[in-house]
Amino acid sequence: MKIGGKDYRTIWFEGKYLKAIDQRFLPFDLRFYDLKSYESAVYAIKEMVVRGAPLIGVTGAAAVYLLLNDIKDGIFNISEFDSKVEMIKEARPTAINLKWGVERVISNLKGDLDNKIKIAKDLTNIIADEDVEMCRSIGVHGLKIIRDIYRRKGDTVNILTHCNAGWLATVDFGTATSPIYHAVKEGIPVHVWVDETRPRNQGGKLTAYELLEEGVKSTLITDNSGGILMQKGMVDLVIVGSDRTSVNGDVCNKIGTYLKALAAYDNKVPFYAALPISTFDLTIKDGVEEIPIENRSESEITTIEGVDKEGNIVTTRLTPDKVKVYNPGFDVTPSRLVTGLITDKGLIKPNREDILRIFK
Amino acid sequence: MKIGGKDYRTIWFEGKYLKAIDQRFLPFDLRFYDLKSYESAVYAIKEMVVRGAPLIGVTGAAAVYLLLNDIKDGIFNISEFDSKVEMIKEARPTAINLKWGVERVISNLKGDLDNKIKIAKDLTNIIADEDVEMCRSIGVHGLKIIRDIYRRKGDTVNILTHCNAGWLATVDFGTATSPIYHAVKEGIPVHVWVDETRPRNQGGKLTAYELLEEGVKSTLITDNSGGILMQKGMVDLVIVGSDRTSVNGDVCNKIGTYLKALAAYDNKVPFYAALPISTFDLTIKDGVEEIPIENRSESEITTIEGVDKEGNIVTTRLTPDKVKVYNPGFDVTPSRLVTGLITDKGLIKPNREDILRIFK
Repeated sequence: MKIGGKDYRTIWFEGKYLKAIDQRFLPFDLRFYDLKSYESAVYAIKEMVVRGAPLIGVTGAAAVYLLLNDIKDGIFNISEFDSKVEMIKEARPTAINLKWGVERVISNLKGDLDNKIKIAKDLTNIIADEDVEMCRSIGVHGLKIIRDIYRRKGDTVNILTHCNAGWLATVDFGTATSPIYHAVKEGIPVHVWVDETRPRNQGGKLTAYELLEEGVKSTLITDNSGGILMQKGMVDLVIVGSDRTSVNGDVCNKIGTYLKALAAYDNKVPFYAALPISTFDLTIKDGVEEIPIENRSESEITTIEGVDKEGNIVTTRLTPDKVKVYNPGFDVTPSRLVTGLITDKGLIKPNREDILRIFK
Repeated sequence: MKIGGKDYRTIWFEGKYLKAIDQRFLPFDLRFYDLKSYESAVYAIKEMVVRGAPLIGVTGAAAVYLLLNDIKDGIFNISEFDSKVEMIKEARPTAINLKWGVERVISNLKGDLDNKIKIAKDLTNIIADEDVEMCRSIGVHGLKIIRDIYRRKGDTVNILTHCNAGWLATVDFGTATSPIYHAVKEGIPVHVWVDETRPRNQGGKLTAYELLEEGVKSTLITDNSGGILMQKGMVDLVIVGSDRTSVNGDVCNKIGTYLKALAAYDNKVPFYAALPISTFDLTIKDGVEEIPIENRSESEITTIEGVDKEGNIVTTRLTPDKVKVYNPGFDVTPSRLVTGLITDKGLIKPNREDILRIFK
């Protein structure tokens, strides 16, 4: 998608190494991050240089490639391979795509080191391309929902989204945003309510940014505002992403998603999660009960990053000094509140039968 | 209540003049503001040196007293009295308590200037004391709910609150916080989940501060977190304030309250609003349909105030430059989601019959 009128992906190869959009500086500054080593890849995942399940998956694959490269360069010994691979997976423990991306590369490695490096590079590229295709497919399936609402309403379709399940969280198109981008491309008038998404403000920083850069009409709101907007009929559709979806259709996504699902349900607003089928965790029977929730650092709530009048990115403290903080990063929306799942394999209902059918 | 181990009210007389806690600098700096003149009182109301409906009401009464004082000191002519009084009321046009406090003093003035000054001073004190008594009464009635939960559970009672309906918004005790302070005083182990409350962060700034200073166990969370806490059984009770309550028991309160009420309902957590009966608007039959919602400035969302490393209070920008923002300040929680109303006249159910019975 576009930034400053130029087309980008979030991560790409330049010769032997990779570059990524450094998302820590968005929306204030467009910088690029070099992935030239295993360490830099793990850092990128852990410190959220890259973020979003699919993009983390690709970066996980890239990390294995870079690890093999480092081994060839003598930085690590081959005997360290397994433990280093574990550390990639642990860089973001909740991100199932990370594990998936890493294991996909690992399980295909064969031959000598050079051969393994080639396989890992090819697979990183393949995973990235597949991700783009997957997101495109999610967009095509989700487009139907927006098109139907537009045909019924005959006026701008108002879509609420939470966090950033946008193209910046994937390689291109995004998950929750892909139906939106496809609808806009088709000429359907769309307006997006963008949840700020505390504590990291990925909505206010990233979703607002990518929609602006792509020229999609949008309005930023606090996470507190979605309820009254739905009460007042100002939302036609909610589309969120998913970090992990259980076999019974419970949707684990950024903290606060569940509250929006409750408001959507209370006001009969359709609530969809858009996700690649790799997000399904078939080992989890009951998402609400079983999905572990990552607790994140206190400083995400006590401090915030913004730009001062001189344009410098500065961190300020928002709270009293001794305040105690609890910062769960995700919540789980029970399937009973979910209208449907927009997947790359089609639109399905959030229940065991429909989910398992995809995997047959 | 306590700050730094010392007991305070938010506003009080020192001899002829008044002092107030300057809330513009909390929680970063405890400063006091001198109300020594009509001008200083109007400034305090307008610039949010004081905030919260009850406290603004008292400050309005004090402003009339200080105006009469200024007239005696020859700063204004008695002929200017009426126009200056109008300017007090216009200092915060939406604050109904301001008008009420001012008019209560005006309508009781009689005799010569000295006599009027005495009456105005006495009434300012009376209005303040009545507010304290009202909040104390809310606390006593709300305490019963907390006590019941404690007896049943036999362990720490976890209470979630939104925004600041604390003593800093009143003269003392607060509304939503008063039952909590009373429970702590009785020795009931209580822990408070404090919603940050975007966009103005009154939870993270003021509620967190006053609970810390009072020594009440508390944990700050984002507005997004309440849902999962309730799902996981980590909340026993929700208590919020109310800015306006309709005759059918719909509760208008700080934006985001409705989402917490939905989560409480979904997880069978009792949800109470604590409010003085002056908050009831008996002309409003259906709060969700009829209560007008104030839209506030974009800058509340696009920028934020915090302290930098040197301890300076600085404003930074959080969002892309061209972002469009919508900032409703309140929402309305339908009475079907409200377990009860904790008023100064007792605990009542949120329905027309029970509400009207209080006013008989």
